[in-house]
Amino acid sequence: MKALVFGGQGEKRLLELPIPDLKAPSDAIVKVKKTTICGTDLHILRGDVPTCAPGRILGHEGIGIIEKAGSGVTAFREGDLVLIACISSCGRCEYCRRGMYSHCTTGGWILGNQIDGTQAEYVRIPHADTSLYRIPPGGDEEAVVMLSDILPTGFECGVLNGKVAPGGTVAIVGAGPIGLAALLTSRFYSPAEIIMVDIDKNRLQMSGKLGATAIVNASNGQASEKVMELTGGRGVDTAIEAVGVPASFITCEKIVAPGGTIANIGVHGVKVDLYLERLWSQNITITTRLVDTVTMPMLLKTVQSHKLDAKALITHRFQLDQILDAYDTFSQAASTRALKVLINA
Amino acid sequence: MKALVFGGQGEKRLLELPIPDLKAPSDAIVKVKKTTICGTDLHILRGDVPTCAPGRILGHEGIGIIEKAGSGVTAFREGDLVLIACISSCGRCEYCRRGMYSHCTTGGWILGNQIDGTQAEYVRIPHADTSLYRIPPGGDEEAVVMLSDILPTGFECGVLNGKVAPGGTVAIVGAGPIGLAALLTSRFYSPAEIIMVDIDKNRLQMSGKLGATAIVNASNGQASEKVMELTGGRGVDTAIEAVGVPASFITCEKIVAPGGTIANIGVHGVKVDLYLERLWSQNITITTRLVDTVTMPMLLKTVQSHKLDAKALITHRFQLDQILDAYDTFSQAASTRALKVLINA
Amino acid sequence: MKALVFGGQGEKRLLELPIPDLKAPSDAIVKVKKTTICGTDLHILRGDVPTCAPGRILGHEGIGIIEKAGSGVTAFREGDLVLIACISSCGRCEYCRRGMYSHCTTGGWILGNQIDGTQAEYVRIPHADTSLYRIPPGGDEEAVVMLSDILPTGFECGVLNGKVAPGGTVAIVGAGPIGLAALLTSRFYSPAEIIMVDIDKNRLQMSGKLGATAIVNASNGQASEKVMELTGGRGVDTAIEAVGVPASFITCEKIVAPGGTIANIGVHGVKVDLYLERLWSQNITITTRLVDTVTMPMLLKTVQSHKLDAKALITHRFQLDQILDAYDTFSQAASTRALKVLINA
Amino acid sequence: MKALVFGGQGEKRLLELPIPDLKAPSDAIVKVKKTTICGTDLHILRGDVPTCAPGRILGHEGIGIIEKAGSGVTAFREGDLVLIACISSCGRCEYCRRGMYSHCTTGGWILGNQIDGTQAEYVRIPHADTSLYRIPPGGDEEAVVMLSDILPTGFECGVLNGKVAPGGTVAIVGAGPIGLAALLTSRFYSPAEIIMVDIDKNRLQMSGKLGATAIVNASNGQASEKVMELTGGRGVDTAIEAVGVPASFITCEKIVAPGGTIANIGVHGVKVDLYLERLWSQNITITTRLVDTVTMPMLLKTVQSHKLDAKALITHRFQLDQILDAYDTFSQAASTRALKVLINA
Repeated sequence: MKALVFGGQGEKRLLELPIPDLKAPSDAIVKVKKTTICGTDLHILRGDVPTCAPGRILGHEGIGIIEKAGSGVTAFREGDLVLIACISSCGRCEYCRRGMYSHCTTGGWILGNQIDGTQAEYVRIPHADTSLYRIPPGGDEEAVVMLSDILPTGFECGVLNGKVAPGGTVAIVGAGPIGLAALLTSRFYSPAEIIMVDIDKNRLQMSGKLGATAIVNASNGQASEKVMELTGGRGVDTAIEAVGVPASFITCEKIVAPGGTIANIGVHGVKVDLYLERLWSQNITITTRLVDTVTMPMLLKTVQSHKLDAKALITHRFQLDQILDAYDTFSQAASTRALKVLINA
Repeated sequence: MKALVFGGQGEKRLLELPIPDLKAPSDAIVKVKKTTICGTDLHILRGDVPTCAPGRILGHEGIGIIEKAGSGVTAFREGDLVLIACISSCGRCEYCRRGMYSHCTTGGWILGNQIDGTQAEYVRIPHADTSLYRIPPGGDEEAVVMLSDILPTGFECGVLNGKVAPGGTVAIVGAGPIGLAALLTSRFYSPAEIIMVDIDKNRLQMSGKLGATAIVNASNGQASEKVMELTGGRGVDTAIEAVGVPASFITCEKIVAPGGTIANIGVHGVKVDLYLERLWSQNITITTRLVDTVTMPMLLKTVQSHKLDAKALITHRFQLDQILDAYDTFSQAASTRALKVLINA
Repeated sequence: MKALVFGGQGEKRLLELPIPDLKAPSDAIVKVKKTTICGTDLHILRGDVPTCAPGRILGHEGIGIIEKAGSGVTAFREGDLVLIACISSCGRCEYCRRGMYSHCTTGGWILGNQIDGTQAEYVRIPHADTSLYRIPPGGDEEAVVMLSDILPTGFECGVLNGKVAPGGTVAIVGAGPIGLAALLTSRFYSPAEIIMVDIDKNRLQMSGKLGATAIVNASNGQASEKVMELTGGRGVDTAIEAVGVPASFITCEKIVAPGGTIANIGVHGVKVDLYLERLWSQNITITTRLVDTVTMPMLLKTVQSHKLDAKALITHRFQLDQILDAYDTFSQAASTRALKVLINA
Repeated sequence: MKALVFGGQGEKRLLELPIPDLKAPSDAIVKVKKTTICGTDLHILRGDVPTCAPGRILGHEGIGIIEKAGSGVTAFREGDLVLIACISSCGRCEYCRRGMYSHCTTGGWILGNQIDGTQAEYVRIPHADTSLYRIPPGGDEEAVVMLSDILPTGFECGVLNGKVAPGGTVAIVGAGPIGLAALLTSRFYSPAEIIMVDIDKNRLQMSGKLGATAIVNASNGQASEKVMELTGGRGVDTAIEAVGVPASFITCEKIVAPGGTIANIGVHGVKVDLYLERLWSQNITITTRLVDTVTMPMLLKTVQSHKLDAKALITHRFQLDQILDAYDTFSQAASTRALKVLINA
């Protein structure tokens, strides 16, 4: 089968490899129909993810057809159309029992990282019963593939942790795919204001189309001042960090209102300054989270009932044998205006 | 009347001053029966609290008798025995309506800071209806005065924000009065483990008496390693910061388990390092809070029903004209072993 | 001034009465601009509300201008445009402190019940600071008057208590004004399905326009069977009772899914059968609530930000001197198709 | 092996039967060490549980040693000491994912009901990974067996659903084993008052020993009046129904305070009157629940840390071949004063 393989820092190749086989009774082999590329895949290629060794097939998003199911798999059978969660969960360990699938003791984010991933014609999914989700008949497949990672990430880490509420004020710092996923899913809760902050004009423009009530161009270094002005000096109830660098987190610290929440989504590589000498008395909450994909059933229902326009994030479409082009397009987003690139396998 | 007056950095004097009078219809004048000294009073004396001007009568804790009630006061009348909340709240503004009395637009922490306080024979209390609490007949007055500030602070900022729960694991970094208040009120929720961390042997010993299940002497700089060892490498569900310096906050960052909470109580003077490069994926929550005193009715019931041994925090007793001695005793806690010093006015 | 006065069972008259005056420092006199008629007013006229004595000016909804403010009123001054909450709250008693304004020990639902109400040119509002809400400049006055009672009732008693959530399934039994208010505010949370149940074709049609995803005509006595069919035999996550008779509550008992909630809004006159022999093991929740109007600030923000089309409930408009006609129109809703009738004073 | 077998209404026999074997890869065979008898077993014997057919081995509580583990079992191996949950849960279905194990689509309460149970030397446990819990070394085995059913039932259905809180007031109607389990676990949350209501003097006396702050003998038919008197006319924040008959549920309706909760635990055989004509405006919550055993890990920690004296419920001890005597003792509790009878297999 064709598969996109990580070759060490800066290296990736589309190779012909053997189709994977079951390793445990709870495994399933999925014939991939659609997959996509995540910002984390670029991190791996930059050499930032030490758990991912050269030789690994990348990718942790996708939908496909059950090709083979282990003897312990009871929820699915051959031919079922399924959504692959980016997080593998056993459903049994203490963390899974608490809904923290991201910390599953034998799962978590392993796909396309510690085990081979979805940017291939076939993929082995461990803990299949609890890591795959049946796609209801008539489901829009392109929309559903957006539920593997980006939408639950925006929703769980940003919107739920950020306690977005009717009438509330939200700022999302970072209007890339993840920030836009937070924007789309913030709208589930009818906040009064959703302010998007970024330096990319195209992404800010897209934000407006997807429901932002105000956009702030941060390129002049005055983003927090502008947000404070937009909120009458009060700050926002929810500040969502969707970049992963100190500057954007510090913007969140500056704009969060007393009693508000900073919900971090970004993957950070270095520490940040926490200005506790001001914040200690501000009754704020800061949350971090690796997506648990625990809201998958809920999100599937919102897609089905047309409450969530998941497809709006897809800007480009490729075939699996064009995946190197897809990577180029995705990694040069500033010029290509790419958000999510869809790959048909 | 006698009153303890702040005279600028390092200066305080016991002076004879006129009895305060009502300024607004919602004010009450309270004849103070008992008061105490807070760590924050020492901060003021060190010149760390710019909102507190020289000439200010200090003190924001106490109980007393209503001497005079403004025409707008409906809940109390002359002769009523009342508990004074350290936080004044109007009950009307957006923040008070949300239970965030600490951010009341015409109140908050003003007593003994922006207006004259309780270390005196009489004190004027603004927003009396919503800033005083009736002491039930037969209430233990010494116990109740501990509810003005220290116990709601430990409880709201530490225990409630920290989501202490049955069977859970708690570490409290700092075993001073505020840490011990968090310890006493953590026990409301029957956690399996309460680990106290400090460098003062006497305070650690006291922790054991008040219900700590383990004590960690941090003087060797290995506190976080020891807490991790005590929790089988897992860390704690709740880490309560009760000191207010970067080192103790960073200890909390190191010992919080995935899915856990760091509840900050300490008053911080400088920023701290937040190690987001590790914590971003740990599903943790960090909270800050200035006490709201919103749990006062609940705490009064726990004192009345003997679920809370509030008096255990009182180590020394003085008369108001010995208040300078009381300050000496309180400020030299390492040698005097003082926790809370009670002052009878 | 003109005022609509209850004259005992079945009796009401539009009379000329003296303008009310302040009785307490916390009172305000409001010159009414707009008011409306509530189903509860009809209950009073039927003699079902023993607390309401003949001679009482009816009405507990409205907006107006502060004409006079008592000396204890600090939040408003003459000339301010305000929304009148149907619930008066002191902001001080135990219940108000817990957000249960409906049980305020000196307030609650007294307006147009135990004290004179808003269907008049002027009304005295007790506890003005905490029972009135400033209308932001540019606020749509017709929309805002819908926030006095009907929208917070649908929202608090139905939607919040019913835990409506993204992707969830909601059934609202009763498509009168209160059921439609629940429908409009359910949409804040993006449920997948909102099924409206009624026997009135016009109201069901209106439900479709306001966002229902399915409508069920209950006139054949098969409503619960139809709802079960629509939900694949599973039942609904939230069943909202918006009529106030045993049959509609029992419908809710039949259609609530395991783990679901029955949120009662209706005013009931008799007991109902609770089928605990089936429900004891179904992990359900049943809630009751008299509206607290505690969400008023949130709802004002949703109106301002166009997340809530409050005006959609208004079907007829009258002047105050036509109020008897307004009552006729409102009470004969089946033929007039009236939902809310607006009265300009 | 020896096993206690249901023989149809009123019939039970201790028989010699073959040791069960694995039927599915996720099964385990447990060699029972200790079991006990539940009120539900008596219901079955009275013929009240139609799902339980004659020939069934009874019992859904117990601890034991893993004798054999199916190929799909990953969490346990032969020789492990385990606690058996009364509820079998697959960990995979929608209900299990939501923590509602009681409604597991292939589990729930099946043990000793739809499949053979624990009152035997060996028992087959389906979904072993998610229906068994490892007993930590040194765990008190007699205490732990109380966690199979009675303690999670009292805790989840009564205490958690009833929102017992520090300083709150609780009444538990019914002081049998289940009511006492609710009493013991209410104490996790330090309520100010726990009032026990029953007609059995011995059980009321036991309630006092286990932490009740007041006891009410209901034999004079004045229980609700007495509870109202004890609460100063206010009623209780939490009313826990622990009998399963209309009278005790109606007592709960009468004593619940505005804003309070009625948490039903009892298994009801007939409908009850719900006095909505009074309760509709009282802002109350009523909950029902079949125990989910989702708090098992939490409860194990409370037993281990000596926060829960689970053994206090055990009044009699038998060997498995005396199980008919054990049934006699348990079913004649009024005279034998039995609470839980322990059976060593």
